[in-house]
Amino acid sequence: MSDSPSQPVIEGASRLYVIVGDPVAQVKSPPVYNAKFAAAGMGTVMVPAHIPSDHFEETMRGLMRLGNLDGLMVTVPFKSRIMPLVDRVLPMGQKVGAINAARREKDGTWTGDMFDGTGLIRGLTSRSISMKGRKVMLVGAGGGGSAVAIAVADAGAAAVSVFDADGAKAEAVAGRIAQHYPACIARHGAVAFEGHDTFINATPIGMAPGDGPPVPLDGLRPDMLVIDIIMKPEVTPLMAHARTLGCTVVGGKAMLEGQAEQVAEFYRIGAAP
Amino acid sequence: MSDSPSQPVIEGASRLYVIVGDPVAQVKSPPVYNAKFAAAGMGTVMVPAHIPSDHFEETMRGLMRLGNLDGLMVTVPFKSRIMPLVDRVLPMGQKVGAINAARREKDGTWTGDMFDGTGLIRGLTSRSISMKGRKVMLVGAGGGGSAVAIAVADAGAAAVSVFDADGAKAEAVAGRIAQHYPACIARHGAVAFEGHDTFINATPIGMAPGDGPPVPLDGLRPDMLVIDIIMKPEVTPLMAHARTLGCTVVGGKAMLEGQAEQVAEFYRIGAAP
Repeated sequence: MSDSPSQPVIEGASRLYVIVGDPVAQVKSPPVYNAKFAAAGMGTVMVPAHIPSDHFEETMRGLMRLGNLDGLMVTVPFKSRIMPLVDRVLPMGQKVGAINAARREKDGTWTGDMFDGTGLIRGLTSRSISMKGRKVMLVGAGGGGSAVAIAVADAGAAAVSVFDADGAKAEAVAGRIAQHYPACIARHGAVAFEGHDTFINATPIGMAPGDGPPVPLDGLRPDMLVIDIIMKPEVTPLMAHARTLGCTVVGGKAMLEGQAEQVAEFYRIGAAP
Repeated sequence: MSDSPSQPVIEGASRLYVIVGDPVAQVKSPPVYNAKFAAAGMGTVMVPAHIPSDHFEETMRGLMRLGNLDGLMVTVPFKSRIMPLVDRVLPMGQKVGAINAARREKDGTWTGDMFDGTGLIRGLTSRSISMKGRKVMLVGAGGGGSAVAIAVADAGAAAVSVFDADGAKAEAVAGRIAQHYPACIARHGAVAFEGHDTFINATPIGMAPGDGPPVPLDGLRPDMLVIDIIMKPEVTPLMAHARTLGCTVVGGKAMLEGQAEQVAEFYRIGAAP
């Protein structure tokens, strides 16, 4: 226990944040936020709660009634399903159609928002990388990918091309971008590096030992920015190849750090009460 | 934080115990059990949950569905109200008509029991004090008092006389003793030290600054055992007076310690999985 991260001491008066998922054992958030609560001198702890998918709504309604629950973090597979249970969804959450964090307001109502994509933008910004005017090709239109695609459009990309093995998913994300960001050229369909200056991998391909890159990398150019949102390994096959080519390369750590900063602000950790 | 009690680090795979009450901020249990979980090397933490009384059942049903919840501790005002929500109540809980702890069994069902009274008996036993053959006068037939009165009968007292300002409460507790322990003489009604060798205060009188003893102490004799279940202050006016007289005196700490040992066994903390 000598390498324990700092966390608040749990007492009767402790306030709670809960991270909900099914499963939930894989989440890394509790130590991250508990260190922030401790640093802010707050008597608040984040704990994991395994919510059975087949009883999601009634379990969440019970949990959200706890008088000392101040916030939620939401992971797979509940990011869309939780939306009807909160009172208010902020604009990014509405555009993505999913939320990954919610806070209880002073009046007892719940506000939710999505930080999976804007967290990456924050992480890029802190590395002095801007999305303004970029022509982005993104592969993987699942939960994380759609949040990233929309956040990239929100951050001023000139074009976003979405590819997914499930073409309907890619089309839906491109449709959301077209609806909310008419100035951004939204495409979906075939993979092509040509005409793009940025490549984002939002698939899980690269996580498993033996994985190759998510798409054939012929056509990747040294002048491109390559972003991989995979957290582990820290350097994926895509990232290794792109570095060899001389590309600017950003890994999942940027998204993780940027998101933690943004969510801490959303939760008002350390803010005046 | 230098005087922080040890507690397990909260991670995604943490298991949960929850102490439920309305209010709950006053409870002292989380650090007690978290130190036990940490000492046993278990990745389990106890957190408080404030359950609104007017939505008790549906909130508890939601909470009890969490896949990583292994146990409950129950405080005022839910010790009776929770009984229909568990699958099985052990004999002491049935006799008292209330439970203060519940554990999830391997098959997913919930077992509850009451340790408010048996905890005191354990604390007395560890101080080499037996209840066998004693003639006990007990004042205060609320939740704690009724659990203590029944545990005293269970531990072999020859007689238990129950007094409460609300006569019906005293009568109900005496009735439970008569039903379950026919060998024990159960009485209720007027306070009288005569004919008793043990006096137990189970009222809150003595907690508040300026409180006197719970009943007039004329008639208290030096040969009597005097027990006060109040935790704070450590020495109540009753205890101070009884010590002056030369009585054997036991305070609330004995009950607290005895109960923590018993509940830890019930929760199987540190037991082989």
